[in-house]
Amino acid sequence: MNASESDIAERILRVDQYQVTMAQLYHRMGLHEIPARFEYFFRTCPDYGGHRAGYCISAGLEWLVKWMTDSRFREEDLAALRNQRMQSGEPLFSEDFLNWLRDNGDWSGVTLRAVPEGRVVHPNVSLVVVEGPLIMAQILETALLNHLNYQTLIATKAARVRESARGRTILEFGLRRAQERAASAGARAALIGGADFTSNVGISRLLGQPPKGTHAHSMVQAFMALGEGELAAFRAYAEVYPDDCLLLVDTINTLESGVPNAIRVFEELRAEGHEPVGIRLDSGDLAYLSIRAAAMLDKAGFDQATIVLSNQLDEMVIWQIVTQIEQEASRYGVDPDSLINRLVYGVGTGLITSAGCGALDGVYKLVALRRDGAWQPAIKVSETREKTLNPGEKRVWRLYDERGKAAADLLCLADEDPRDMKEIVLRHPTEATKRRTFDRSRLSECEELLVEVIRDGRPVGEFPTLDEIRRRRDADRERLDPGVRRLINPHVYHVSLSQRLWDLKQSLIEEALGGAERTS
Amino acid sequence: MNASESDIAERILRVDQYQVTMAQLYHRMGLHEIPARFEYFFRTCPDYGGHRAGYCISAGLEWLVKWMTDSRFREEDLAALRNQRMQSGEPLFSEDFLNWLRDNGDWSGVTLRAVPEGRVVHPNVSLVVVEGPLIMAQILETALLNHLNYQTLIATKAARVRESARGRTILEFGLRRAQERAASAGARAALIGGADFTSNVGISRLLGQPPKGTHAHSMVQAFMALGEGELAAFRAYAEVYPDDCLLLVDTINTLESGVPNAIRVFEELRAEGHEPVGIRLDSGDLAYLSIRAAAMLDKAGFDQATIVLSNQLDEMVIWQIVTQIEQEASRYGVDPDSLINRLVYGVGTGLITSAGCGALDGVYKLVALRRDGAWQPAIKVSETREKTLNPGEKRVWRLYDERGKAAADLLCLADEDPRDMKEIVLRHPTEATKRRTFDRSRLSECEELLVEVIRDGRPVGEFPTLDEIRRRRDADRERLDPGVRRLINPHVYHVSLSQRLWDLKQSLIEEALGGAERTS
Repeated sequence: MNASESDIAERILRVDQYQVTMAQLYHRMGLHEIPARFEYFFRTCPDYGGHRAGYCISAGLEWLVKWMTDSRFREEDLAALRNQRMQSGEPLFSEDFLNWLRDNGDWSGVTLRAVPEGRVVHPNVSLVVVEGPLIMAQILETALLNHLNYQTLIATKAARVRESARGRTILEFGLRRAQERAASAGARAALIGGADFTSNVGISRLLGQPPKGTHAHSMVQAFMALGEGELAAFRAYAEVYPDDCLLLVDTINTLESGVPNAIRVFEELRAEGHEPVGIRLDSGDLAYLSIRAAAMLDKAGFDQATIVLSNQLDEMVIWQIVTQIEQEASRYGVDPDSLINRLVYGVGTGLITSAGCGALDGVYKLVALRRDGAWQPAIKVSETREKTLNPGEKRVWRLYDERGKAAADLLCLADEDPRDMKEIVLRHPTEATKRRTFDRSRLSECEELLVEVIRDGRPVGEFPTLDEIRRRRDADRERLDPGVRRLINPHVYHVSLSQRLWDLKQSLIEEALGGAERTS
Repeated sequence: MNASESDIAERILRVDQYQVTMAQLYHRMGLHEIPARFEYFFRTCPDYGGHRAGYCISAGLEWLVKWMTDSRFREEDLAALRNQRMQSGEPLFSEDFLNWLRDNGDWSGVTLRAVPEGRVVHPNVSLVVVEGPLIMAQILETALLNHLNYQTLIATKAARVRESARGRTILEFGLRRAQERAASAGARAALIGGADFTSNVGISRLLGQPPKGTHAHSMVQAFMALGEGELAAFRAYAEVYPDDCLLLVDTINTLESGVPNAIRVFEELRAEGHEPVGIRLDSGDLAYLSIRAAAMLDKAGFDQATIVLSNQLDEMVIWQIVTQIEQEASRYGVDPDSLINRLVYGVGTGLITSAGCGALDGVYKLVALRRDGAWQPAIKVSETREKTLNPGEKRVWRLYDERGKAAADLLCLADEDPRDMKEIVLRHPTEATKRRTFDRSRLSECEELLVEVIRDGRPVGEFPTLDEIRRRRDADRERLDPGVRRLINPHVYHVSLSQRLWDLKQSLIEEALGGAERTS
């Protein structure tokens, strides 16, 4: 899409129509400036079909904040709204309303508290709390979900790939299969969640990272079509990149042609004083081929050469490859650990599309309105009990046990502080019979998770660097119980309500349903 | 992300690193201006797990062409490349090469022929043929795949939703679960493939379509939190939008509260001379609730009121809902056909993420290089036989049988024209024993599928409008055998090679493998 044309769809009109029709209604009814509180949370960890995540990694916040900084109702946005018609042919939006948007349609009244990027996060925990005039807090919904759902989804998948790769380097290779422009956000989220580098040049530049990549099959094909062969192609590559020589060896036949040709070129390089980097395998049985290739490289004296694996990888495939190498490598005279420690994983489609689960089910819900100087909790009762939201003005805490491991996340009312409690009662969000009690003195720490990110429309403090975000991620993962980190059948991490929040929720449900009975 | 910052990742550096390292190699070796031919095709129709597509809908071309018009190597792009370092610490890219990119790094030498948007397309058929200097045709790969794979994937899913919806209106509701900025491309692709409208305001503006949407649960919640109720919320909505009144009825309890309150407001509206539009159901058993709601609306005299269904819909869920209504509606005194004909489907996550299959496996392969005035076919032999590509300079034809139905797509060499053949031999792309023969006189039409879109870097002709694209889609679907359009276990549409193309492919495979044997 043409960049200047597309601008209209990238800014404040990246919004669902109903946000704007509701906004006009609030304005017409004089409700638009009532302080409102909305919360962002997801309901379940991604389920990839046959396996599911035990935790998520928060991502997308910085880009949401930058989008907000960039977006307000401009004349061209108002023109788009002015253009819309009702069934009757009359303009859908009144000039009054459009004037209000022109003069006030920005985020200056909005405050946002959030769980920082890179943190381990769990279902039903308020990850972002937005406070502001009802009209703008409502309009924010779509863009907020659009930014946070996708990046958190991809960061979470990347964290799983990282779990399976046993500390080896992970390269994000998904740009060609990525969702068009989301490639940038997706690569960023992958770098937050678990990838070390990406092949995406533009996003690498934007984030100050070196992009990774060497050559494709087409280079070898080109030399073949010109009457030369794979060996000539490899030699040309070694000539241009003598100290960065990583060769793709499966254009013709990996073991019969690719690896022998690579070894020949590596020997020539070494004779000239350069150390080759390694090879890449992109098709066939990657476990078997990597064992056989390692044996050939070892024999030729290149036992340090990296072996990059790519082609349809994800956390399960990597796990399977590593397992198979452990079981079979020694039969070919290859030490399994040495081989595993020279592997690098190029992960494309499976990571950037979060294969098996293409969306995080994050939602943004009204939880309170301010009336007569006090917050009035708002509820939505659902046909599905799990979808009934947790109402009111809340704070979110993470409780750590004696070992320093995260034991539970606790949603409290705003005036509750678990550090002041002797006994902390944890209620299951929906099951009345499920409850636990912690003795405060046996907890090593109670940590509040939400930090202020935007105050009155202005960003608070600096954004953390990618390295800081990654350190936060690693620290949080270290503090998870290993059972929660499992790729298959992870332990369910506890997310609980305080007793007072539980009581409030029950009374509001009763009131809403009672009201319904009176109405009908 | 901040729009000005992000620009670097949106233009020509939306590229994989290895395209640029290969480009430098071609430049260093003096190969960069050799005319090259690359082809784009996908290998399989999306497999959603348990069901798969029988055909795809081509989409994304216009935005690719606009991206090309917008993208060339600018100083800031070159600065990003200049910044990169080799292992040795030396600059990765030479000034020579960067200067060449600055002076020549655009698409002026590139010609592109493609299957137009909205057409029914099949695996292994060349959908785009790119001709141009090796260096720029290679650099184009990533962006081309990034544009076409995603939009074709989403248009295909939308076509399936359309197959299941029996001509009823489909609304694209996916912005909140979309992949960040890909929401625009995704909504466009959905509109091409099968959706009638989208809730996305920005993209609707860009495409000249009216966006759709009314109100969310939060509006009802807000009235409740302010001490009023669902009825007051509905009345407010009716007051502001008397001729566009569509009410979401499941915030509290659909049948006990929502529908009765909606009917009350509809009666008030009608008394004032306005006709209500209808209701939306967003949770619970949508088949059952729509039957019960229809019965209540009918009884109250609103038998024309639309019932919009949303919540986790996709082609399978819609099919199930329609089937259940057919089987059960009459038990509640509701005519199934009338009910089905008042339904509208709001499809969110399932459509914009192509649930079950998050990527089209489209690839871009070098098929020929021009040397000594003639095209030299290029081949890639794969460990997986299905991945061995179809080489050489080709044309693509669709053959229609006596009924006017599409019988097969045929890949020929460039100098072959099936219209001149008496007998047309169709070879399976990989299976030597599978072949068919058509008598030319029994075919009603041989249609060439590729049309010129870019000549020497400049777009050829006007882009078709969305309506034209949709008409093309509908015409193509009409000419498909119903078996190919089935949602489950569709017939496999025939894609074949001409005898001469088959022979060329076999000889090149033999040559490549023979060469490999000699080398090793």
